[in-house]
Amino acid sequence: MNADPDYSAAYLRIRTDAADGLEGHGFVFTIGRGNEVEAAAIAALSPMLLEREVEPMLDDMGAVWREFVHDSQLRWLGPEKGVMHMAIGAVVNALWDLKAKRAGLPLWQLLSRMSPEELVGLVDFRYLSDALTPEEALQILRAAEPGRAEREQRLVAEGYPGYTTTPGWLGYSDEKLVRLAREAVADGYAQIKLKVGADVDDDVRRLRLARETVGPDIRIAVDANQRWDVAEAIEWVKRLAPFDIAWVEEPTSPDDILGHAAIARGIAPIPVATGEHVQNRIVFKQMLQAQSLQILQIDATRVAGVNENIAILLLAAKFQVPVCPHAGGVGLCEAVQHLSMFDFVAVSGSKTDRMIEAVTHLHEHFVTPIELRAGNYWPPQAPGAGTEMKRDSLEQFSYPDGPVWREAVFQNVWS
Amino acid sequence: MNADPDYSAAYLRIRTDAADGLEGHGFVFTIGRGNEVEAAAIAALSPMLLEREVEPMLDDMGAVWREFVHDSQLRWLGPEKGVMHMAIGAVVNALWDLKAKRAGLPLWQLLSRMSPEELVGLVDFRYLSDALTPEEALQILRAAEPGRAEREQRLVAEGYPGYTTTPGWLGYSDEKLVRLAREAVADGYAQIKLKVGADVDDDVRRLRLARETVGPDIRIAVDANQRWDVAEAIEWVKRLAPFDIAWVEEPTSPDDILGHAAIARGIAPIPVATGEHVQNRIVFKQMLQAQSLQILQIDATRVAGVNENIAILLLAAKFQVPVCPHAGGVGLCEAVQHLSMFDFVAVSGSKTDRMIEAVTHLHEHFVTPIELRAGNYWPPQAPGAGTEMKRDSLEQFSYPDGPVWREAVFQNVWS
Repeated sequence: MNADPDYSAAYLRIRTDAADGLEGHGFVFTIGRGNEVEAAAIAALSPMLLEREVEPMLDDMGAVWREFVHDSQLRWLGPEKGVMHMAIGAVVNALWDLKAKRAGLPLWQLLSRMSPEELVGLVDFRYLSDALTPEEALQILRAAEPGRAEREQRLVAEGYPGYTTTPGWLGYSDEKLVRLAREAVADGYAQIKLKVGADVDDDVRRLRLARETVGPDIRIAVDANQRWDVAEAIEWVKRLAPFDIAWVEEPTSPDDILGHAAIARGIAPIPVATGEHVQNRIVFKQMLQAQSLQILQIDATRVAGVNENIAILLLAAKFQVPVCPHAGGVGLCEAVQHLSMFDFVAVSGSKTDRMIEAVTHLHEHFVTPIELRAGNYWPPQAPGAGTEMKRDSLEQFSYPDGPVWREAVFQNVWS
Repeated sequence: MNADPDYSAAYLRIRTDAADGLEGHGFVFTIGRGNEVEAAAIAALSPMLLEREVEPMLDDMGAVWREFVHDSQLRWLGPEKGVMHMAIGAVVNALWDLKAKRAGLPLWQLLSRMSPEELVGLVDFRYLSDALTPEEALQILRAAEPGRAEREQRLVAEGYPGYTTTPGWLGYSDEKLVRLAREAVADGYAQIKLKVGADVDDDVRRLRLARETVGPDIRIAVDANQRWDVAEAIEWVKRLAPFDIAWVEEPTSPDDILGHAAIARGIAPIPVATGEHVQNRIVFKQMLQAQSLQILQIDATRVAGVNENIAILLLAAKFQVPVCPHAGGVGLCEAVQHLSMFDFVAVSGSKTDRMIEAVTHLHEHFVTPIELRAGNYWPPQAPGAGTEMKRDSLEQFSYPDGPVWREAVFQNVWS
């Protein structure tokens, strides 16, 4: 479905006149065309930031979220979905980056040390109250409160599990698949993921190879990237079931709550995983209510930023569904790890059945790249939300005026 | 919810080098801020149109729709929702405008004269097949085929029912409400609509006044514009029920399929109406499957244009749910009437329980304004899709360089 991605990001920087010189950075990951539309959406939000006192905003991020998301004119473009909602997410995340830097803490730790009442104040419960009330959210957070300090220590000592999609891309030769699967196990991963959905016989062959290579103890998930309709998904997955599938990811449209539920019933006990394209907390709420998913995949730049992802973590905790973030993109690993670590310390209190997607590319562009070791993410210690790219990368790769792009255009013109 | 709308449109014009000089016009209705983001999204699609042979595109509008909607990079920004999807809708509608002008027919008639096979070819059944297959769609269209000519004559002779929201805006005095309700009845409308949801006692008083004014035979619908959560909606509507409510519109988030279904069960037999913010055919499919709505409200510029609205009309016909379009905005009446008229002639074959929202403002900017008479829309005869604004209006009101805007800025600076 995403045939020729050109990994991109619509990027923003929030500067203040404070003497500390700290900046908040945020972005929306895109896969190429349309990145300029996302950039225009972020620009459309700048009048809501310019000349504002920053302290009152950082002190009440719940109010800031509501102000942006419920803007009476901008909401017509959604509401709460697509280009405009993702742009708000970038701004919200940039403000959290600034807030964490000012606090001198990595975001996961900043969130993990907020009181249950403060955390509940970050969440907009509008349209959620039939599934999760503020009181229930408070109970969940209070129940996790006593173990926070101990889990923070465990996190630093043990890390947080990752899994890798590296071996499983469509189009790799069987030899490459086998080699990369073997390397993934050697690197310490307990789960790998294979893309499926182009040709079922091909998928069966690749899954058999992968299973033979990694043995019975490594989990193998499959990812269909929205390729199927309901009946087709159920039939297809039945062909793959003999190879012990850890989960089936994005079997159909991310908008199809009832379709996912029908597929989940049809392929049980194999779990359905989805979320990287789920537009907001309201759709996640329904997917939990309808048992459309058994693994919930948050994404750092799809919904309206940290606040909305906290709402989604609380919903998942209420329904006792594990969260395994999507992170295939630019900077998604860097950003989303904070949310999983916060979830472990202060929300679900568990790492069981939970892991973060780990990809190995493009980390070199970030000021505080992820630390992946022995199949685990290791908790970042640097202040901030992990969303800041290196100055040099921003200059080199800025579209269309950065040197890399000018060179590309030059070569294109003369080739 | 839409507190201070500033009616706007992101507008596009498709020109060709054909000798006929015909142009295709399309737009996305917005309510102000963010209109420039929608314009950027339309601009992002222009490389897919420039220098193309137009005839093969107009000859296979089904393929064109798939090409735009399933673009592997642009779909990341949705998929199929929000700013990017609406932009595609504007382009698709502009192509239909051009196609209808070339055929010398108003769009409703062009569509009504296409064969069932051609119409099915316009629809993308991806993600729909668990509710509607191409074969079922063909059956629906074939069943309606024998009566087409007769219904076309009836349409020209009788018109198509409209209803009016004019009396019911929040903030009108009771005197104004009564006066406008009386005028609506005098104008021939069989249904009026009142905005509700700010204050329940206020709503009860206004509804009592409206019911006393129009008597028992005029239908009164209410519109909450997404204000409520599920439980609140059910309680609120129970207070309004004694006044014989025709439908409850947008009781909660347009994304909340299960929430709408719970509300529909909770307020039955009062029907739920929704759709003006429903993002695509996949969400409408589920709302029909889950009985979330009993009145389906299409919008001409929310989904990806004529093709997707045909898919939605077919879904509604399959589930035997009447379609009553949303049309409060700029040019929405002009555009959407074609779809209801086509539905009557060639899809549902019925006007029973069906009517189009009718608003009285801004028609003066359109080359072929709607004709409203005796509470009915009268079928347009001019070739095209009704989406073309007058050259003079485009020049006067273009943002930010049109004289009206320059004057506004001038006054703002000096006041």
